[in-house]
Amino acid sequence: MNLKLYVNSEFSSPYAMSVFVTLKEKGIPFELAALDLNTGEHQQPGYRDLALNGRIPALVHDGFVLTESSAISEYLEDVFPAPEYKAVYPKASQQRARAREIQAWVRSDLMPIREERSTLTVFHQPATQPLSPEARAAADKLFRAADKLVNGENLFGEWSIADTDLAMMLQRLVHSGDDVPAKLKDYANAQWQREPVQQWLALVEKAKLAAR
Amino acid sequence: MNLKLYVNSEFSSPYAMSVFVTLKEKGIPFELAALDLNTGEHQQPGYRDLALNGRIPALVHDGFVLTESSAISEYLEDVFPAPEYKAVYPKASQQRARAREIQAWVRSDLMPIREERSTLTVFHQPATQPLSPEARAAADKLFRAADKLVNGENLFGEWSIADTDLAMMLQRLVHSGDDVPAKLKDYANAQWQREPVQQWLALVEKAKLAAR
Ligand SMILES: [Ca+2]
Ligand SMILES: [Ca+2]
Ligand SMILES: [Ca+2]
Ligand SMILES: [Ca+2]
Repeated sequence: MNLKLYVNSEFSSPYAMSVFVTLKEKGIPFELAALDLNTGEHQQPGYRDLALNGRIPALVHDGFVLTESSAISEYLEDVFPAPEYKAVYPKASQQRARAREIQAWVRSDLMPIREERSTLTVFHQPATQPLSPEARAAADKLFRAADKLVNGENLFGEWSIADTDLAMMLQRLVHSGDDVPAKLKDYANAQWQREPVQQWLALVEKAKLAAR
Repeated sequence: MNLKLYVNSEFSSPYAMSVFVTLKEKGIPFELAALDLNTGEHQQPGYRDLALNGRIPALVHDGFVLTESSAISEYLEDVFPAPEYKAVYPKASQQRARAREIQAWVRSDLMPIREERSTLTVFHQPATQPLSPEARAAADKLFRAADKLVNGENLFGEWSIADTDLAMMLQRLVHSGDDVPAKLKDYANAQWQREPVQQWLALVEKAKLAAR
Protein backbone atom coordinates (compact mmCIF):
# COMPACT_ATOMS: atom_id res chain seq x y z
CA MET A 1 0.00 0.00 0.00
CA ASN A 2 1.02 3.55 -0.72
CA LEU A 3 -0.30 6.35 1.49
CA LYS A 4 0.46 10.04 1.31
CA LEU A 5 -1.02 12.73 3.57
CA TYR A 6 -0.96 16.35 2.44
CA VAL A 7 -0.81 18.86 5.30
CA ASN A 8 0.10 22.55 5.57
CA SER A 9 3.76 23.36 6.14
CA GLU A 10 3.02 25.25 9.38
CA PHE A 11 1.35 22.08 10.72
CA SER A 12 -1.38 24.32 12.11
CA SER A 13 -4.46 22.69 10.60
CA PRO A 14 -6.55 20.91 13.26
CA TYR A 15 -8.07 18.80 10.48
CA ALA A 16 -4.67 17.71 9.18
CA MET A 17 -3.69 16.83 12.74
CA SER A 18 -6.88 14.79 13.13
CA VAL A 19 -6.05 12.60 10.12
CA PHE A 20 -2.39 12.36 11.20
CA VAL A 21 -3.56 11.07 14.58
CA THR A 22 -5.88 8.51 12.95
CA LEU A 23 -3.01 7.17 10.84
CA LYS A 24 -0.61 7.05 13.80
CA GLU A 25 -3.13 5.46 16.18
CA LYS A 26 -3.82 2.80 13.57
CA GLY A 27 -0.09 2.32 13.02
CA ILE A 28 -0.37 2.72 9.24
CA PRO A 29 2.86 3.86 7.57
CA PHE A 30 2.46 6.94 5.38
CA GLU A 31 4.40 9.70 3.70
CA LEU A 32 3.84 13.35 4.68
CA ALA A 33 3.72 16.13 2.08
CA ALA A 34 3.68 19.69 3.43
CA LEU A 35 2.23 22.48 1.27
CA ASP A 36 2.97 26.14 1.93
CA LEU A 37 -0.48 27.76 2.04
CA ASN A 38 1.11 31.19 2.49
CA THR A 39 2.55 31.03 -1.05
CA GLY A 40 -0.61 29.42 -2.39
CA GLU A 41 0.92 26.03 -3.15
CA HIS A 42 -2.48 24.41 -2.65
CA GLN A 43 -4.00 26.68 -5.31
CA GLN A 44 -1.59 25.58 -8.02
CA PRO A 45 -3.23 23.45 -10.74
CA GLY A 46 -1.34 20.33 -9.61
CA TYR A 47 -2.88 20.15 -6.16
CA ARG A 48 -6.08 21.93 -7.10
CA ASP A 49 -6.85 19.23 -9.68
CA LEU A 50 -5.86 16.45 -7.29
CA ALA A 51 -7.96 17.47 -4.29
CA LEU A 52 -11.73 17.82 -4.78
CA ASN A 53 -12.08 20.74 -2.38
CA GLY A 54 -8.62 22.26 -3.02
CA ARG A 55 -7.95 22.25 0.72
CA ILE A 56 -5.68 20.33 3.04
CA PRO A 57 -5.67 17.68 4.36
CA ALA A 58 -5.85 15.28 1.45
CA LEU A 59 -5.02 11.59 1.52
CA VAL A 60 -3.79 9.67 -1.50
CA HIS A 61 -4.17 5.91 -1.13
CA ASP A 62 -2.95 3.89 -4.10
CA GLY A 63 -4.13 6.65 -6.45
CA PHE A 64 -7.45 7.32 -4.70
CA VAL A 65 -7.53 10.94 -3.57
CA LEU A 66 -9.76 12.01 -0.68
CA THR A 67 -10.27 15.30 1.17
CA GLU A 68 -12.27 16.32 4.27
CA SER A 69 -10.70 15.06 7.46
CA SER A 70 -13.74 13.29 8.88
CA ALA A 71 -14.35 11.47 5.57
CA ILE A 72 -10.67 10.47 5.52
CA SER A 73 -10.75 9.01 9.05
CA GLU A 74 -13.94 7.10 8.19
CA TYR A 75 -12.30 5.77 5.02
CA LEU A 76 -9.21 4.64 6.92
CA GLU A 77 -11.49 2.89 9.44
CA ASP A 78 -13.25 1.13 6.52
CA VAL A 79 -10.14 -0.09 4.74
CA PHE A 80 -7.90 -0.67 7.77
CA PRO A 81 -10.49 -2.10 10.19
CA ALA A 82 -10.20 -3.52 13.72
CA PRO A 83 -9.05 -5.88 15.06
CA GLU A 84 -6.03 -5.89 12.72
CA TYR A 85 -5.77 -2.11 13.13
CA LYS A 86 -6.89 -0.05 16.12
CA ALA A 87 -10.45 1.28 15.82
CA VAL A 88 -10.72 5.07 15.71
CA TYR A 89 -14.53 5.07 16.03
CA PRO A 90 -16.65 3.32 18.66
CA LYS A 91 -18.34 0.12 17.53
CA ALA A 92 -21.82 0.61 19.06
CA SER A 93 -24.23 2.51 16.77
CA GLN A 94 -25.21 5.21 19.25
CA GLN A 95 -21.65 5.87 20.38
CA ARG A 96 -20.45 5.92 16.79
CA ALA A 97 -23.24 8.37 15.99
CA ARG A 98 -22.18 10.55 18.90
CA ALA A 99 -18.56 10.52 17.68
CA ARG A 100 -19.69 11.60 14.20
CA GLU A 101 -21.91 14.28 15.72
CA ILE A 102 -18.95 15.71 17.63
CA GLN A 103 -16.72 15.64 14.55
CA ALA A 104 -19.36 17.42 12.43
CA TRP A 105 -20.13 19.88 15.19
CA VAL A 106 -16.58 21.14 15.83
CA ARG A 107 -16.16 21.56 12.06
CA SER A 108 -19.35 23.58 11.47
CA ASP A 109 -20.17 25.55 14.63
CA LEU A 110 -18.53 27.55 17.44
CA MET A 111 -17.15 29.92 14.80
CA PRO A 112 -16.27 32.78 17.21
CA ILE A 113 -13.96 30.42 19.11
CA ARG A 114 -12.40 29.17 15.89
CA GLU A 115 -11.80 32.77 14.78
CA GLU A 116 -10.57 34.32 18.04
CA ARG A 117 -8.67 31.21 19.12
CA SER A 118 -7.31 29.91 15.80
CA THR A 119 -5.05 26.90 16.04
CA LEU A 120 -2.10 29.26 15.57
CA THR A 121 -2.90 30.31 19.17
CA VAL A 122 -2.68 26.64 20.16
CA PHE A 123 0.46 25.72 18.25
CA HIS A 124 2.34 29.00 17.94
CA GLN A 125 1.36 31.98 20.10
CA PRO A 126 -1.46 32.22 22.69
CA ALA A 127 -4.00 35.00 22.17
CA THR A 128 -3.69 38.11 24.31
CA GLN A 129 -7.16 39.59 23.64
CA PRO A 130 -9.99 38.46 25.91
CA LEU A 131 -12.87 36.56 24.28
CA SER A 132 -15.62 38.70 22.73
CA PRO A 133 -19.14 38.28 24.15
CA GLU A 134 -19.97 36.06 21.12
CA ALA A 135 -16.96 33.83 21.72
CA ARG A 136 -17.79 33.72 25.43
CA ALA A 137 -21.31 32.51 24.56
CA ALA A 138 -19.85 29.89 22.21
CA ALA A 139 -17.46 28.77 24.95
CA ASP A 140 -20.37 28.39 27.39
CA LYS A 141 -22.21 26.28 24.82
CA LEU A 142 -19.09 24.17 24.30
CA PHE A 143 -18.64 23.66 28.05
CA ARG A 144 -22.31 22.75 28.53
CA ALA A 145 -22.10 20.08 25.81
CA ALA A 146 -18.65 18.84 26.81
CA ASP A 147 -19.68 18.56 30.44
CA LYS A 148 -22.41 16.12 29.41
CA LEU A 149 -20.03 14.16 27.16
CA VAL A 150 -16.87 13.94 29.25
CA ASN A 151 -16.85 11.44 32.06
CA GLY A 152 -13.37 9.99 32.45
CA GLU A 153 -10.31 9.63 30.29
CA ASN A 154 -12.11 9.04 26.97
CA LEU A 155 -15.61 9.84 25.74
CA PHE A 156 -16.55 6.24 25.00
CA GLY A 157 -14.36 4.11 27.25
CA GLU A 158 -11.86 3.28 24.51
CA TRP A 159 -10.19 6.27 22.84
CA SER A 160 -11.73 7.52 19.57
CA ILE A 161 -10.82 10.26 17.10
CA ALA A 162 -13.72 12.32 18.51
CA ASP A 163 -11.61 12.62 21.69
CA THR A 164 -8.81 14.30 19.77
CA ASP A 165 -11.23 16.61 17.94
CA LEU A 166 -13.09 17.64 21.11
CA ALA A 167 -9.82 18.11 22.99
CA MET A 168 -8.57 20.35 20.17
CA MET A 169 -11.62 22.60 20.50
CA LEU A 170 -11.03 22.82 24.27
CA GLN A 171 -7.29 23.43 23.82
CA ARG A 172 -8.10 26.58 21.84
CA LEU A 173 -9.31 28.03 25.15
CA VAL A 174 -6.90 26.24 27.48
CA HIS A 175 -3.84 27.49 25.56
CA SER A 176 -4.78 31.16 25.84
CA GLY A 177 -5.55 30.92 29.55
CA ASP A 178 -9.32 31.35 29.15
CA ASP A 179 -11.45 29.98 31.99
CA VAL A 180 -12.12 26.31 31.30
CA PRO A 181 -13.86 24.06 33.86
CA ALA A 182 -11.28 21.86 35.59
CA LYS A 183 -12.82 18.57 34.46
CA LEU A 184 -12.65 19.65 30.82
CA LYS A 185 -9.16 21.12 31.13
CA ASP A 186 -7.90 17.87 32.66
CA TYR A 187 -9.58 15.86 29.92
CA ALA A 188 -8.11 18.03 27.13
CA ASN A 189 -4.63 17.96 28.67
CA ALA A 190 -4.69 14.18 29.10
CA GLN A 191 -5.72 13.76 25.44
CA TRP A 192 -2.82 16.04 24.51
CA GLN A 193 -0.38 13.61 26.10
CA ARG A 194 -1.18 10.81 23.65
CA GLU A 195 1.84 9.85 21.57
CA PRO A 196 0.39 10.79 18.13
CA VAL A 197 -0.53 14.28 19.36
CA GLN A 198 2.95 14.68 20.82
CA GLN A 199 4.41 13.58 17.48
CA TRP A 200 2.36 16.25 15.73
CA LEU A 201 3.52 18.88 18.23
CA ALA A 202 7.12 17.89 17.48
CA LEU A 203 6.45 18.51 13.77
CA VAL A 204 5.03 21.93 14.67
CA GLU A 205 8.24 22.76 16.56
CA LYS A 206 10.39 21.55 13.68
CA ALA A 207 8.40 23.74 11.27
CA LYS A 208 8.90 26.74 13.56
CA LEU A 209 12.65 26.23 13.62
CA ALA A 210 12.76 25.80 9.83
CA ALA A 211 10.81 29.05 9.38
CA ARG A 212 13.32 31.12 11.35
CA MET B 1 -39.95 2.44 17.15
CA ASN B 2 -40.50 6.09 17.87
CA LEU B 3 -38.84 8.72 15.68
CA LYS B 4 -39.13 12.46 15.87
CA LEU B 5 -37.34 14.96 13.64
CA TYR B 6 -36.92 18.55 14.79
CA VAL B 7 -36.77 21.09 11.94
CA ASN B 8 -37.22 24.86 11.69
CA SER B 9 -40.74 26.10 11.11
CA GLU B 10 -39.78 27.90 7.88
CA PHE B 11 -38.51 24.56 6.52
CA SER B 12 -35.52 26.46 5.14
CA SER B 13 -32.66 24.46 6.64
CA PRO B 14 -30.82 22.45 3.97
CA TYR B 15 -29.59 20.15 6.74
CA ALA B 16 -33.10 19.49 8.05
CA MET B 17 -34.17 18.74 4.47
CA SER B 18 -31.25 16.33 4.07
CA VAL B 19 -32.36 14.25 7.07
CA PHE B 20 -36.02 14.46 6.00
CA VAL B 21 -35.02 13.05 2.60
CA THR B 22 -33.03 10.22 4.23
CA LEU B 23 -36.05 9.23 6.34
CA LYS B 24 -38.45 9.42 3.37
CA GLU B 25 -36.15 7.54 0.98
CA LYS B 26 -35.80 4.81 3.59
CA GLY B 27 -39.55 4.80 4.14
CA ILE B 28 -39.20 5.15 7.91
CA PRO B 29 -42.30 6.66 9.60
CA PHE B 30 -41.50 9.65 11.80
CA GLU B 31 -43.07 12.64 13.48
CA LEU B 32 -42.08 16.19 12.52
CA ALA B 33 -41.61 18.92 15.14
CA ALA B 34 -41.13 22.46 13.81
CA LEU B 35 -39.34 25.02 15.97
CA ASP B 36 -39.62 28.75 15.33
CA LEU B 37 -36.01 29.93 15.25
CA ASN B 38 -37.14 33.54 14.83
CA THR B 39 -38.61 33.54 18.34
CA GLY B 40 -35.66 31.54 19.69
CA GLU B 41 -37.63 28.37 20.42
CA HIS B 42 -34.42 26.34 19.93
CA GLN B 43 -32.64 28.40 22.59
CA GLN B 44 -35.17 27.57 25.29
CA PRO B 45 -33.80 25.26 28.01
CA GLY B 46 -36.06 22.39 26.85
CA TYR B 47 -34.56 22.06 23.39
CA ARG B 48 -31.17 23.41 24.36
CA ASP B 49 -30.74 20.63 26.91
CA LEU B 50 -32.08 18.00 24.51
CA ALA B 51 -29.85 18.76 21.52
CA LEU B 52 -26.07 18.64 22.00
CA ASN B 53 -25.37 21.50 19.59
CA GLY B 54 -28.60 23.43 20.26
CA ARG B 55 -29.28 23.55 16.52
CA ILE B 56 -31.78 21.92 14.20
CA PRO B 57 -32.10 19.31 12.86
CA ALA B 58 -32.22 16.88 15.75
CA LEU B 59 -33.50 13.32 15.67
CA VAL B 60 -34.94 11.56 18.68
CA HIS B 61 -35.04 7.78 18.28
CA ASP B 62 -36.51 5.92 21.24
CA GLY B 63 -35.01 8.51 23.59
CA PHE B 64 -31.63 8.76 21.88
CA VAL B 65 -31.10 12.36 20.76
CA LEU B 66 -28.74 13.15 17.88
CA THR B 67 -27.84 16.36 16.03
CA GLU B 68 -25.73 17.14 12.94
CA SER B 69 -27.45 16.09 9.74
CA SER B 70 -24.65 13.97 8.31
CA ALA B 71 -24.27 12.08 11.61
CA ILE B 72 -28.05 11.53 11.65
CA SER B 73 -28.13 10.08 8.12
CA GLU B 74 -25.21 7.79 8.97
CA TYR B 75 -27.00 6.65 12.13
CA LEU B 76 -30.21 5.93 10.23
CA GLU B 77 -28.17 3.92 7.71
CA ASP B 78 -26.63 1.97 10.61
CA VAL B 79 -29.87 1.12 12.40
CA PHE B 80 -32.17 0.82 9.35
CA PRO B 81 -29.78 -0.89 6.93
CA ALA B 82 -30.22 -2.25 3.40
CA PRO B 83 -31.66 -4.45 2.05
CA GLU B 84 -34.66 -4.10 4.37
CA TYR B 85 -34.45 -0.30 3.99
CA LYS B 86 -33.09 1.60 1.02
CA ALA B 87 -29.39 2.48 1.31
CA VAL B 88 -28.65 6.20 1.45
CA TYR B 89 -24.88 5.75 1.13
CA PRO B 90 -22.98 3.76 -1.52
CA LYS B 91 -21.70 0.37 -0.40
CA ALA B 92 -18.19 0.45 -1.91
CA SER B 93 -15.56 2.02 0.37
CA GLN B 94 -14.24 4.59 -2.10
CA GLN B 95 -17.71 5.69 -3.23
CA ARG B 96 -18.90 5.87 0.37
CA ALA B 97 -15.83 7.95 1.18
CA ARG B 98 -16.60 10.27 -1.72
CA ALA B 99 -20.20 10.67 -0.51
CA ARG B 100 -18.95 11.58 2.97
CA GLU B 101 -16.40 13.98 1.47
CA ILE B 102 -19.17 15.78 -0.43
CA GLN B 103 -21.39 15.96 2.66
CA ALA B 104 -18.56 17.39 4.78
CA TRP B 105 -17.48 19.77 2.03
CA VAL B 106 -20.85 21.44 1.40
CA ARG B 107 -21.22 21.88 5.17
CA SER B 108 -17.82 23.50 5.77
CA ASP B 109 -16.74 25.36 2.62
CA LEU B 110 -18.11 27.58 -0.18
CA MET B 111 -19.19 30.09 2.47
CA PRO B 112 -19.71 33.05 0.08
CA ILE B 113 -22.29 31.00 -1.84
CA ARG B 114 -24.00 29.93 1.37
CA GLU B 115 -24.14 33.57 2.51
CA GLU B 116 -25.17 35.29 -0.73
CA ARG B 117 -27.45 32.46 -1.82
CA SER B 118 -28.94 31.29 1.48
CA THR B 119 -31.57 28.59 1.22
CA LEU B 120 -34.20 31.30 1.71
CA THR B 121 -33.27 32.26 -1.87
CA VAL B 122 -33.94 28.66 -2.90
CA PHE B 123 -37.17 28.12 -0.99
CA HIS B 124 -38.63 31.61 -0.66
CA GLN B 125 -37.31 34.46 -2.80
CA PRO B 126 -34.48 34.35 -5.39
CA ALA B 127 -31.60 36.78 -4.85
CA THR B 128 -31.52 39.91 -6.99
CA GLN B 129 -27.91 40.95 -6.31
CA PRO B 130 -25.21 39.48 -8.57
CA LEU B 131 -22.60 37.25 -6.97
CA SER B 132 -19.62 39.02 -5.40
CA PRO B 133 -16.18 38.17 -6.81
CA GLU B 134 -15.63 35.87 -3.80
CA ALA B 135 -18.89 34.02 -4.41
CA ARG B 136 -18.08 33.82 -8.13
CA ALA B 137 -14.74 32.19 -7.27
CA ALA B 138 -16.51 29.75 -4.92
CA ALA B 139 -19.02 28.94 -7.68
CA ASP B 140 -16.18 28.23 -10.12
CA LYS B 141 -14.60 25.90 -7.57
CA LEU B 142 -17.97 24.18 -7.04
CA PHE B 143 -18.48 23.75 -10.80
CA ARG B 144 -14.95 22.39 -11.29
CA ALA B 145 -15.49 19.77 -8.59
CA ALA B 146 -19.07 18.95 -9.59
CA ASP B 147 -18.08 18.58 -13.23
CA LYS B 148 -15.68 15.81 -12.20
CA LEU B 149 -18.27 14.15 -9.96
CA VAL B 150 -21.44 14.33 -12.07
CA ASN B 151 -21.77 11.86 -14.89
CA GLY B 152 -25.40 10.85 -15.28
CA GLU B 153 -28.49 10.87 -13.12
CA ASN B 154 -26.78 10.05 -9.80
CA LEU B 155 -23.20 10.40 -8.57
CA PHE B 156 -22.71 6.71 -7.84
CA GLY B 157 -25.18 4.88 -10.10
CA GLU B 158 -27.74 4.36 -7.37
CA TRP B 159 -29.02 7.50 -5.67
CA SER B 160 -27.35 8.53 -2.40
CA ILE B 161 -27.92 11.36 0.09
CA ALA B 162 -24.78 13.06 -1.32
CA ASP B 163 -26.82 13.64 -4.49
CA THR B 164 -29.41 15.64 -2.57
CA ASP B 165 -26.73 17.61 -0.73
CA LEU B 166 -24.72 18.43 -3.89
CA ALA B 167 -27.92 19.31 -5.77
CA MET B 168 -28.88 21.67 -2.93
CA MET B 169 -25.59 23.53 -3.25
CA LEU B 170 -26.13 23.85 -7.02
CA GLN B 171 -29.77 24.92 -6.57
CA ARG B 172 -28.58 27.92 -4.57
CA LEU B 173 -27.20 29.24 -7.88
CA VAL B 174 -29.82 27.78 -10.24
CA HIS B 175 -32.69 29.37 -8.30
CA SER B 176 -31.31 32.90 -8.55
CA GLY B 177 -30.56 32.59 -12.27
CA ASP B 178 -26.78 32.54 -11.86
CA ASP B 179 -24.82 30.94 -14.71
CA VAL B 180 -24.60 27.21 -14.03
CA PRO B 181 -23.16 24.78 -16.61
CA ALA B 182 -26.01 22.94 -18.37
CA LYS B 183 -24.89 19.47 -17.24
CA LEU B 184 -24.93 20.54 -13.59
CA LYS B 185 -28.21 22.44 -13.90
CA ASP B 186 -29.87 19.37 -15.45
CA TYR B 187 -28.45 17.15 -12.71
CA ALA B 188 -29.64 19.47 -9.91
CA ASN B 189 -33.10 19.84 -11.44
CA ALA B 190 -33.51 16.09 -11.91
CA GLN B 191 -32.53 15.52 -8.25
CA TRP B 192 -35.12 18.14 -7.30
CA GLN B 193 -37.86 16.04 -8.91
CA ARG B 194 -37.41 13.16 -6.48
CA GLU B 195 -40.52 12.55 -4.39
CA PRO B 196 -38.97 13.28 -0.94
CA VAL B 197 -37.61 16.64 -2.15
CA GLN B 198 -41.02 17.48 -3.61
CA GLN B 199 -42.62 16.55 -0.29
CA TRP B 200 -40.24 18.93 1.48
CA LEU B 201 -41.06 21.71 -1.00
CA ALA B 202 -44.76 21.16 -0.26
CA LEU B 203 -44.01 21.67 3.45
CA VAL B 204 -42.18 24.90 2.58
CA GLU B 205 -45.25 26.14 0.70
CA LYS B 206 -47.55 25.17 3.55
CA ALA B 207 -45.30 27.09 5.99
CA LYS B 208 -45.42 30.14 3.71
CA LEU B 209 -49.22 30.10 3.66
CA ALA B 210 -49.37 29.67 7.44
CA ALA B 211 -47.04 32.67 7.91
CA ARG B 212 -49.31 35.04 5.96
CA1 LIG C 1 2.06 31.99 8.43
CA1 LIG D 1 -12.20 18.85 7.11
CA1 LIG E 1 -38.14 34.39 8.83
CA1 LIG F 1 -25.50 19.67 10.10
